[in-house]
Amino acid sequence: MAVDTSVPVPSKPNIGVFTNPKHDLWLADAKPTVEEVKSGKDLKPGEVTVEVRSTGICGSDVHFWHAGCIGPMIVTGDHILGHESAGQVIAVAPDVTKLKVGDRVAIEPNIICNECEPCLTGRYNGCERVEFLSTPPVDGLLRRYVNHPAIWCHKIGDMSYENGALLEPLSVSLAAMERSGIRLGDPVLIAGAGPIGLITLLSASAAGATPIVITDIDEGRLKFAKSLVPGVRTYQARTGVSDEENAQGIIDALNDGHGSEPDAIRPRLALECTGVQSSVCSAIWSVKFGGKVFVIGVGKNEMTIPFMRLSTWEIDLQYQYRYCNTWPRAIRLVRNGVIDLKRLVTHRFTLEDALKAFDTASNPKTGAIKVQIMSSEEDVKAANEADKA
Amino acid sequence: MAVDTSVPVPSKPNIGVFTNPKHDLWLADAKPTVEEVKSGKDLKPGEVTVEVRSTGICGSDVHFWHAGCIGPMIVTGDHILGHESAGQVIAVAPDVTKLKVGDRVAIEPNIICNECEPCLTGRYNGCERVEFLSTPPVDGLLRRYVNHPAIWCHKIGDMSYENGALLEPLSVSLAAMERSGIRLGDPVLIAGAGPIGLITLLSASAAGATPIVITDIDEGRLKFAKSLVPGVRTYQARTGVSDEENAQGIIDALNDGHGSEPDAIRPRLALECTGVQSSVCSAIWSVKFGGKVFVIGVGKNEMTIPFMRLSTWEIDLQYQYRYCNTWPRAIRLVRNGVIDLKRLVTHRFTLEDALKAFDTASNPKTGAIKVQIMSSEEDVKAANEADKA
Amino acid sequence: MAVDTSVPVPSKPNIGVFTNPKHDLWLADAKPTVEEVKSGKDLKPGEVTVEVRSTGICGSDVHFWHAGCIGPMIVTGDHILGHESAGQVIAVAPDVTKLKVGDRVAIEPNIICNECEPCLTGRYNGCERVEFLSTPPVDGLLRRYVNHPAIWCHKIGDMSYENGALLEPLSVSLAAMERSGIRLGDPVLIAGAGPIGLITLLSASAAGATPIVITDIDEGRLKFAKSLVPGVRTYQARTGVSDEENAQGIIDALNDGHGSEPDAIRPRLALECTGVQSSVCSAIWSVKFGGKVFVIGVGKNEMTIPFMRLSTWEIDLQYQYRYCNTWPRAIRLVRNGVIDLKRLVTHRFTLEDALKAFDTASNPKTGAIKVQIMSSEEDVKAANEADKA
Amino acid sequence: MAVDTSVPVPSKPNIGVFTNPKHDLWLADAKPTVEEVKSGKDLKPGEVTVEVRSTGICGSDVHFWHAGCIGPMIVTGDHILGHESAGQVIAVAPDVTKLKVGDRVAIEPNIICNECEPCLTGRYNGCERVEFLSTPPVDGLLRRYVNHPAIWCHKIGDMSYENGALLEPLSVSLAAMERSGIRLGDPVLIAGAGPIGLITLLSASAAGATPIVITDIDEGRLKFAKSLVPGVRTYQARTGVSDEENAQGIIDALNDGHGSEPDAIRPRLALECTGVQSSVCSAIWSVKFGGKVFVIGVGKNEMTIPFMRLSTWEIDLQYQYRYCNTWPRAIRLVRNGVIDLKRLVTHRFTLEDALKAFDTASNPKTGAIKVQIMSSEEDVKAANEADKA
Repeated sequence: MAVDTSVPVPSKPNIGVFTNPKHDLWLADAKPTVEEVKSGKDLKPGEVTVEVRSTGICGSDVHFWHAGCIGPMIVTGDHILGHESAGQVIAVAPDVTKLKVGDRVAIEPNIICNECEPCLTGRYNGCERVEFLSTPPVDGLLRRYVNHPAIWCHKIGDMSYENGALLEPLSVSLAAMERSGIRLGDPVLIAGAGPIGLITLLSASAAGATPIVITDIDEGRLKFAKSLVPGVRTYQARTGVSDEENAQGIIDALNDGHGSEPDAIRPRLALECTGVQSSVCSAIWSVKFGGKVFVIGVGKNEMTIPFMRLSTWEIDLQYQYRYCNTWPRAIRLVRNGVIDLKRLVTHRFTLEDALKAFDTASNPKTGAIKVQIMSSEEDVKAANEADKA
Repeated sequence: MAVDTSVPVPSKPNIGVFTNPKHDLWLADAKPTVEEVKSGKDLKPGEVTVEVRSTGICGSDVHFWHAGCIGPMIVTGDHILGHESAGQVIAVAPDVTKLKVGDRVAIEPNIICNECEPCLTGRYNGCERVEFLSTPPVDGLLRRYVNHPAIWCHKIGDMSYENGALLEPLSVSLAAMERSGIRLGDPVLIAGAGPIGLITLLSASAAGATPIVITDIDEGRLKFAKSLVPGVRTYQARTGVSDEENAQGIIDALNDGHGSEPDAIRPRLALECTGVQSSVCSAIWSVKFGGKVFVIGVGKNEMTIPFMRLSTWEIDLQYQYRYCNTWPRAIRLVRNGVIDLKRLVTHRFTLEDALKAFDTASNPKTGAIKVQIMSSEEDVKAANEADKA
Repeated sequence: MAVDTSVPVPSKPNIGVFTNPKHDLWLADAKPTVEEVKSGKDLKPGEVTVEVRSTGICGSDVHFWHAGCIGPMIVTGDHILGHESAGQVIAVAPDVTKLKVGDRVAIEPNIICNECEPCLTGRYNGCERVEFLSTPPVDGLLRRYVNHPAIWCHKIGDMSYENGALLEPLSVSLAAMERSGIRLGDPVLIAGAGPIGLITLLSASAAGATPIVITDIDEGRLKFAKSLVPGVRTYQARTGVSDEENAQGIIDALNDGHGSEPDAIRPRLALECTGVQSSVCSAIWSVKFGGKVFVIGVGKNEMTIPFMRLSTWEIDLQYQYRYCNTWPRAIRLVRNGVIDLKRLVTHRFTLEDALKAFDTASNPKTGAIKVQIMSSEEDVKAANEADKA
Repeated sequence: MAVDTSVPVPSKPNIGVFTNPKHDLWLADAKPTVEEVKSGKDLKPGEVTVEVRSTGICGSDVHFWHAGCIGPMIVTGDHILGHESAGQVIAVAPDVTKLKVGDRVAIEPNIICNECEPCLTGRYNGCERVEFLSTPPVDGLLRRYVNHPAIWCHKIGDMSYENGALLEPLSVSLAAMERSGIRLGDPVLIAGAGPIGLITLLSASAAGATPIVITDIDEGRLKFAKSLVPGVRTYQARTGVSDEENAQGIIDALNDGHGSEPDAIRPRLALECTGVQSSVCSAIWSVKFGGKVFVIGVGKNEMTIPFMRLSTWEIDLQYQYRYCNTWPRAIRLVRNGVIDLKRLVTHRFTLEDALKAFDTASNPKTGAIKVQIMSSEEDVKAANEADKA
């Protein structure tokens, strides 16, 4: 496949998608200006300028807009959203050797200190001085041009920019695959069929977990999951019943049609993607002795859990915060066709239409899974055409 | 050291320490009778008869007596207590080759099925058909003679019977050492300075954890801990303050006198031996990014925990249920002097005085840590003499 | 799918495939006799009688025939071969509750002691008193009827007997997947494209490893590998060149068409399925810092390895012996279509034609990968027909 | 304990201990000059100037002098030796906040790139662009003043400089403790009683391994080991016997006086500190099924090992290269008295007497374990006095 890596001269003004403590959402001029981009003077050592070509909207972007905060991270001024992006390198600082103008890259949206214990021990997601793009007060990537350290721009070869942008949510699930110790042939529960639940489903399926059961309270999402991974079993979580009853429903779905084993199998691993207490607790009640409930989702500050069940069944409760060292692995998986992300994209908009994009992403009635914001009308059209093919 | 392994002819009647649903506690005739022991006819294939010489009282024994149950395990009839015992083999079934009459042994108080997944995967503490002695309806070891499979009787050589009995609570902490992944040089929190907390302190110290801080609400227990392991730091947990405040107290105690590091160190591992919510939560707030709270203690069925702290700090919450494959390791540690258990024994009684022993063990004013019930007045005297030496 | 589980009355005499120290190979009467099967008196507690329906020939079967030994395991008398079998339960001992007459089962060809440390710690492949079927002096499964403990007969539901037999070699590769810690997205080398190499390829691919490169000295086998897993890269190992040169060939094949990464990727994990020194050493030279060479293949008693490369690159060298706890996982993977084994079968024969089957399996010119011996002409025909469909 | 942290004005000229391809060893002027130190102009951002106060001689220092190379690392010009040092900060670059003048520090003798995969995944000992001090062409620490990044200078509080210097060899053994997975109560073999073997003995003992057996061909070293850790068992390796015979001698020593277990115990873990083939192979023959031989020592490029024993006993062969993230742990262990290093120092010299120090370290007849080179006659006297106390 021939990929056009010719580099357009930056011509359009830089604009970004902003929110503020008053929950406004608007487009406005952003840094670096197109003049600064052209001059290259704004680049710090080690940095490159990326023309952002595709950016996904994350639930956290909507949350910062609507709620103004996530836990202790609070929007206090004008703030640019977005952290799922890919684009093209259009300028490089003189000391950069790793990248050159024209390279197509996915952006890993963090900058780390390289000095604290988490950094030195390979868990830089816990960096004590991390700058995570789009988390206040660090601006995000929903703009036309951005300067970023070359080391956090990963070459994607001929992968589409949209796939490049989707490597960020894929990274979340890959961190979960790695830390949870999922294994070929594991019976697995995935709780929640939102964007992260669905990407986790793709990942767990690619890792050979079987059987897999996915849960959600929404029937439509379970259908979408089934269309994505036909072999998955589904269980529609019920409200108004006990966690134990939902756990039994999960176990029944997992064993549907499997009469060969003497006892019903239970999940060895539950990948919790909702952060909702009833879902976490149903997962705990469903896994087997010595199993694990691995929490990917974020939830309320406090939660009440069945402590003695965890104790007498030796169930590990493990959590994940962002990711580290996932992009190279994510690139291999997508390039080699092991994981196909593009069916997750349900809507596409131009950067100029970003407000419509956020309306779509935040409205449950749209059925949106993943909404992409692209740098041009041509990119949107081309991607839509490719879907039909 | 010459150990007398001559085997006395069983002469005394078999008696046991019973409780029932009415919370009575009494001595009565127990099986096998001394006649059955002499005839050897009662022994099933693979079994030996052990004359029990020393048995420790566990908190669960007191709990079955006072509360009549632990979770789903309920005293429904006359029930013999006790599961921390060592003694001498006085008869063996014809097919037993592993043991001979006269062998001194510590009893591992479980019998497993060898067929279920936990058994076949080396986690037989999760055996689906386990018989755990002293857990209703399976009778315990607080009697003079007991028949038990040879495979669950571990030879202790010239170790004292008291130390042999203490291998059971040591096994609990060794299972924790193994599963928690404690490492040489780890900063560690031990929450709770009761018998299990103190044995865990001895184990963590023997494993080279440093610094270690131990907490309790009782000042006397912290002093006892300090006398046991002089290098340990202590923090008296406060009631009426937040879990975060207690966590800060723990961190301060851990760093006392250590000004060399740029930041205060936090525990990498918390070994929770109370099962009390405020203690569990203080542990969660105290450990570092990527750390672990490992729960040894049992508590209420439900508990409210700081979910998002666990998530954003990637803190693993792990639990333990009983133990497996610990006796050979425990025997090595005690025989080679790496762990010295005998200072934990604060009181000794004869089997005939078992009711006094239980009164002492269950009365906080006695300052009892570990109470031993021995088979004869001579054994009690000899042990008390040895303490003074 | 409706599966016929009606149980035919045992009518044919029991025959088996024997070898001896003189390297003869012949068919002869085997135990239990059909009369013993009918009477059921020969069954020990816990045993069932299985009518064997399909058995694969393993390289070790051929080796016992041709060489008379594998290491310390020596054929000293008349000896029945075969350990990859599935069949139907036609009688059960009175105490067996796990299985009933008519059940279709795959046979795990070992009987363990349940008492030694490997057994109690979940690594029963290291059982100090294991009886492994077909390893002298324990007779194998290449006969019409065999008595075997119910616990080592795994229900396969409606799976074909041929697939049931193939669960044994699959178990070898699943043990490797588990112990080697293979992960989704790992670059992996598989050294050797014989039966075990190919099953390992199927397993590694199902586990999401990517890219995968497979090596062999035989071009035909590499083509077969490519037909089995189209995305696999291949490298034909060269003789007369250094191990480092073959390692470079492996790295080049792995990176073919991947120009996006700054440096050529190397395997994180090499799964060595040949046991040949040059292949082991090429694997060592190819993996990355901190990688692992995991040896599945058996080889000569001694081997010369690049010690300092292992040291300065911190490469783990890990080995595997047989398997444990793999059948339930293997059944899930095959039943749910995650791994498709049947394309590995290149030839089928009846039990009466077993000698032809061994000739085919041991003659490199036949291109045989896996040769199956089936209980009847009808089974052979039906399987051959199914292949064409 | 009051520690003098007053900072002397640099007055003496900077000198260093040099070697070259002709195997000369001499003292000469070194950089930075005392004038550069006083001016502070030579400091790069992030650096501090350390006055080196104590430096240990490592076997590799002697090897670079005598052999001119270690594997691919070759002395090609005038080259300063030494990488086990501690000293006092006497100047800091303006941007350094982590350290201040007067701080007492131990030097971690490496500078890493923070960009390659080993760095980002927490295994920076495998950094692809590491500068390791004293490995050609990077100069070492055997000089009076050295500029070094603040991040690689670890504050040691009131620890002696000698102990501070010994943190480097301790780091080697701590990396082994961490990667080998040593556990409380493990039976352990330590092969080799040289400096690294002895420090590994101290570490394994501090980690609660028991019983421990140490081997050497030299009886004097075994006596020294016994004086260091009285509980250790010793086995004098024999030449002219098979590796299996030496393995049996190791097992016998491990079981001496332990008749309680049904079978002789074998090491679960062998820590190989010699790099000699016969020692590595004896270790392999001695460990138990599922055990591990962990190689700390460096040896010849190639080695012949018992391949099939490793395979059929599932013995992991694991290696270590230098260390990472060990200093904070090492500091805690020494400060809290868990590991006492100073008995390893058998000889002390001033920097001016460095040639005598090297003669002593390289002459087996001196009985030298660890030779320290100190910055002044006063320091040598004080340390010698402290030993007598």
